[in-house]
Amino acid sequence: MSGLTLHHLQRSQSERILWLLEELNVPYSLVLHKRDPLLAPPSLKALHELGTAPVITDNGLTLSESMAVATYIINKHGGEAGQHVIVEPESPDYSDYLFILYFVVCSLQPAGSGVMLSYFDETLGDESPARAFPKARFLKYLKFTEKWLGEKNRTYLAGERFTLADIMALWVFTTSRTFIPYSLEPYPNILAYVQRIVKREAYQRAMDKGDHGLPILSGAEPGEKKAYF
Amino acid sequence: MSGLTLHHLQRSQSERILWLLEELNVPYSLVLHKRDPLLAPPSLKALHELGTAPVITDNGLTLSESMAVATYIINKHGGEAGQHVIVEPESPDYSDYLFILYFVVCSLQPAGSGVMLSYFDETLGDESPARAFPKARFLKYLKFTEKWLGEKNRTYLAGERFTLADIMALWVFTTSRTFIPYSLEPYPNILAYVQRIVKREAYQRAMDKGDHGLPILSGAEPGEKKAYF
Repeated sequence: MSGLTLHHLQRSQSERILWLLEELNVPYSLVLHKRDPLLAPPSLKALHELGTAPVITDNGLTLSESMAVATYIINKHGGEAGQHVIVEPESPDYSDYLFILYFVVCSLQPAGSGVMLSYFDETLGDESPARAFPKARFLKYLKFTEKWLGEKNRTYLAGERFTLADIMALWVFTTSRTFIPYSLEPYPNILAYVQRIVKREAYQRAMDKGDHGLPILSGAEPGEKKAYF
Repeated sequence: MSGLTLHHLQRSQSERILWLLEELNVPYSLVLHKRDPLLAPPSLKALHELGTAPVITDNGLTLSESMAVATYIINKHGGEAGQHVIVEPESPDYSDYLFILYFVVCSLQPAGSGVMLSYFDETLGDESPARAFPKARFLKYLKFTEKWLGEKNRTYLAGERFTLADIMALWVFTTSRTFIPYSLEPYPNILAYVQRIVKREAYQRAMDKGDHGLPILSGAEPGEKKAYF
């Protein structure tokens, strides 16, 4: 396929790239992949050795790794709209933007994945250090995010402007709860933030195209697992 | 303190920021912090709620999170040398650079941390899924990196140019082995790459200023733990 194509794994973090494309009004083709049954299917591994989503192809180039894909799309296809979702070094919000973006992708999200992995081992008790330790780290980061949003009464994670940080973060508070059984109830600022963001038309379009018929976990309801924290 | 100050936790990933400052010849003050005994000391928590290293202060600003700090230094203090360690969208190496940089900071390093965390629970056997799963993921990423370096006979991770990706990656192959007991012996391309990089004068200066007297794990030797993989 020539032109930009996004390979999206349903119920996965690649919803962020789909959403970014909709926010920026970039033309693209979409290929949907289904989990098999929980992990990525062979069709994704056939595209990229790491077998993770998202993968994009663009005139002979194949690229994976969410932040690489997002940055590539912004700078190669995003035009003016693309430059508007990143914050420039001259802005007074620059350091807040950098901090919260990288906190989300290098700390909060990996901490969430750590919890997810600990639930793959169903023989572990909730009190075992192998589950308790990742969980404590993730909860610490959630509490920090809750405080961060309240601190300056922030509308978006980097301040008054909707940015890439919001696009990268939302999955942790929504779809990831299908796999990490936690509730947003103890975090009223995060909950209000999520409910604000999921109303965006581009987000609604993305979820409809990528995960049609699957529920958006936008409230404080727990995910699929019964026991949650 | 006015001007740029780096708070470095010894034997930690903040060595990368120290090294970046030396590569770019940016003037800075250095404050050393010691682990207490394994985790970050109260002196770091007093600077930033998350209590992680690195932390920089810069005329009233306090910033943590490695990638945020690195990007801030490059764009606010790095001048021309700073722009030379990142790859511009017009370069043919742009997508390789984005991929490997974000693979390192969002996949490889978190996978390493997952292994590190699994070793904190000393009651776990090596065969327990809670240890085996993170280890398998980390080994998969090491093998991928080994292949990546060999594939195009790359001198540096992004190709022929030394970049931020190298600065962010090296810790995983060197100092982190103090805590994650693995050997580089099965990875001759990574081993040769490490031995090439550690010769850089800026790296030597950084390690001397930050971790004076502590060994650089630049070969295939295991870290401090006796059992290694």
